[in-house]
Amino acid sequence: MTADTITAADTRINARWLIPMEPFGVVLEHQAVILQGSRIADVLPQSEADQKFRTRETINLDQHVVLPGLINLHGHTAMSLFRGMADDLPLMTWLNDHIWPAEGRFVSEPFVLDGTRLAMAEMLRTGTTTFSDMYFFPEVTAQVAHDVGMRAQICFPLLDNPTVWGSGPEDYLRKGADLIALWQHDDYIMPAIGPHAPYTVSDQPLTAAVKLAEETGAALQIHLHETAFEVDEAVKATGKRPVFRMAELGVLGPNSQYVHMTQIDDSDLEHLARAGGHIVHCPESNLKLASGFCPVQKLIDSNINVTIGTDGAASNNDLDLFGELKTAAMVAKVVAGDAAAVSAHTALKMATINGARALGRDHELGSLVPGKLADLIAVDLSDPFLQPVYDPASHLVYSNHGRAVSHSWIHGVPQVQDGRLTRIDVPDLMLRVSDWRNKILS
Amino acid sequence: MTADTITAADTRINARWLIPMEPFGVVLEHQAVILQGSRIADVLPQSEADQKFRTRETINLDQHVVLPGLINLHGHTAMSLFRGMADDLPLMTWLNDHIWPAEGRFVSEPFVLDGTRLAMAEMLRTGTTTFSDMYFFPEVTAQVAHDVGMRAQICFPLLDNPTVWGSGPEDYLRKGADLIALWQHDDYIMPAIGPHAPYTVSDQPLTAAVKLAEETGAALQIHLHETAFEVDEAVKATGKRPVFRMAELGVLGPNSQYVHMTQIDDSDLEHLARAGGHIVHCPESNLKLASGFCPVQKLIDSNINVTIGTDGAASNNDLDLFGELKTAAMVAKVVAGDAAAVSAHTALKMATINGARALGRDHELGSLVPGKLADLIAVDLSDPFLQPVYDPASHLVYSNHGRAVSHSWIHGVPQVQDGRLTRIDVPDLMLRVSDWRNKILS
Repeated sequence: MTADTITAADTRINARWLIPMEPFGVVLEHQAVILQGSRIADVLPQSEADQKFRTRETINLDQHVVLPGLINLHGHTAMSLFRGMADDLPLMTWLNDHIWPAEGRFVSEPFVLDGTRLAMAEMLRTGTTTFSDMYFFPEVTAQVAHDVGMRAQICFPLLDNPTVWGSGPEDYLRKGADLIALWQHDDYIMPAIGPHAPYTVSDQPLTAAVKLAEETGAALQIHLHETAFEVDEAVKATGKRPVFRMAELGVLGPNSQYVHMTQIDDSDLEHLARAGGHIVHCPESNLKLASGFCPVQKLIDSNINVTIGTDGAASNNDLDLFGELKTAAMVAKVVAGDAAAVSAHTALKMATINGARALGRDHELGSLVPGKLADLIAVDLSDPFLQPVYDPASHLVYSNHGRAVSHSWIHGVPQVQDGRLTRIDVPDLMLRVSDWRNKILS
Repeated sequence: MTADTITAADTRINARWLIPMEPFGVVLEHQAVILQGSRIADVLPQSEADQKFRTRETINLDQHVVLPGLINLHGHTAMSLFRGMADDLPLMTWLNDHIWPAEGRFVSEPFVLDGTRLAMAEMLRTGTTTFSDMYFFPEVTAQVAHDVGMRAQICFPLLDNPTVWGSGPEDYLRKGADLIALWQHDDYIMPAIGPHAPYTVSDQPLTAAVKLAEETGAALQIHLHETAFEVDEAVKATGKRPVFRMAELGVLGPNSQYVHMTQIDDSDLEHLARAGGHIVHCPESNLKLASGFCPVQKLIDSNINVTIGTDGAASNNDLDLFGELKTAAMVAKVVAGDAAAVSAHTALKMATINGARALGRDHELGSLVPGKLADLIAVDLSDPFLQPVYDPASHLVYSNHGRAVSHSWIHGVPQVQDGRLTRIDVPDLMLRVSDWRNKILS
């Protein structure tokens, strides 16, 4: 072994356990992850790393499991400022009588700025490295995510009605096209198109959205079949299930993401399988609003890509994706009538490589493979809550509290170190959140 | 105001928010809880407390919500040492191929001692002050719970088969009677009778268990209607649903606790309503083992007392009762088809005063009322995860991570202070747990 076979790199992470996600279902022990710039240079046994790499720093995580950063594929990030404001209400009452009026009164650029930072603080601390947002003032969310260095799909909202962000579909689409033009080549920000739902967007703006997606390559994300009520009303009014109408309009496709999907019959399944696209399962929101159960195992068995999202903090009420994985894995078993449905590893897949695939970035995100971007996290398993360790994947899904996340890197940049956020000023943020609370309560 | 109207007491806790649970649904602000010895001397506005009490210590919890300690009414405490050992398996495979063989090989007095301490560490840190156990070597569990100072209902196991703890029903009943005699007048320990399930205990020992309960006043806890399989097999073999057989044998009654109850038809509901007794809902175990859904709102509407339990760490896989409340409240909504079902306050009631009622101790546990025993906890809401605060009850159920529990008192004795356990040596415990892991893996 001569000196010139040793490569210089930035960071070596010594992991007691490693779940690379590719290959699937594997837990490795005593691995070293080598970071160079924004990329993973190598993943190899610690015993071999000394002879191959010399790094500027070495981080020893000898009670930790290291895995890809989690991808939270649906949320309304700034709604964290409405966390716990209105609970135990049906979806339409919750929207009509609480959320929409509050949004009309309070949502503004500063609200979105502070709400996004609050949500990012929680997401980073609980292992999320990439999130998707669908909310007003997406240009603010994009900027603050970029400044902090979180990866984010930013879906600009599209509705028939005027809102605080615009006068109507034409205005939303014009602003949205600007957003896409500004950010589409950014490392961190993935601008996308967010038509709210079939019942709030009519055919013409949906067709324009599909055209914009085709022209720009931007992804499209839509709330779809969230409740039986939505489907029943659509059938009453038009004779068509929303999925069928979306298929006709070209909204379904390999670059589209369908959020919720608690109502799926065989014809829906056929449309989804034929058109492609990705389900974003939001189990806790679906439970809390009594929306229904998404048949996750059935979708997986039909080769449909299932990803996961928390939805907004107002209907969850936290942004801890590990908690969401526990709920997803547990509920899927009863829904399938099979305790083997959605195993711990399958749940982790939903939040990593499946999410990357939905974003069209599975070639560089979602698994710990040399050459991919260095988006990864470590979870400290030394706590009594997580002992003893027979299978770290089990603990991550079934026993974990997101708060055990100790480290996070995005694009090779440390975001969480020993449980502390490096790039968000939490005391300052807490003062701002307190101001918003007082304003909203008064 | 003269000096002799001022009463001396031990501890004054200044609570930013207080949820006394009696009256129901109330959140008070800026309250003082006065502790004297093992009891709550008073609960009053902070502004009045100076003039009424002089205390040896004052604890300022100005970002915290104070509430009664949680009651975890079903578990197999020492199974914490099997946490995550076997997941994603149906109940009978899980029991026959994994849990029962492992128990046969490893369960012993030292196993129960260390496993109980591990479980107590997790339960105390996440807000539980009283737990129920049903496991082998209950005399060990009773002693260690008493030594640490946790309140515990200790159900001795009763089965037809021999186990590590005894040769058969007569042996179990004899040892159980000794356990009851030894502990029945203790402040902390509530000895009880734990026939495992209708399918593992035949009529004669069940009848003897009922007789022992009548003679001693001890409560009886049994796994009942955990799965559809259990009910179907019983109907095939005997023509009777297990609830009906239990009613005939006198197992049902006001001093009995029925764990799981995922299968409830109208005839079951009638038997339960007529006989009295208490449901112990274990939502996460029921989901994870694909057992089914307990119709919680329907039971509440039928005036049946519903309490909550985590079940053992091997089928959950954590003992965080706040997480269990989130799951219970969320799942109940979809099962009832009503987002207003099982509100945050109703969920908290299940884990406090309802649990106390099932233990026959609602006159002294389960709410923060002057004269009751000083079993209470504080949850720190200052973390970004729990901000902003509009309704602390909402955060406790829907946003909380059990790890935000900062303080706990049982019988007036501090058990958790600023998040640290006062009466369990965690580093020593972790060494013992590590030894067990190595033994079990090898």
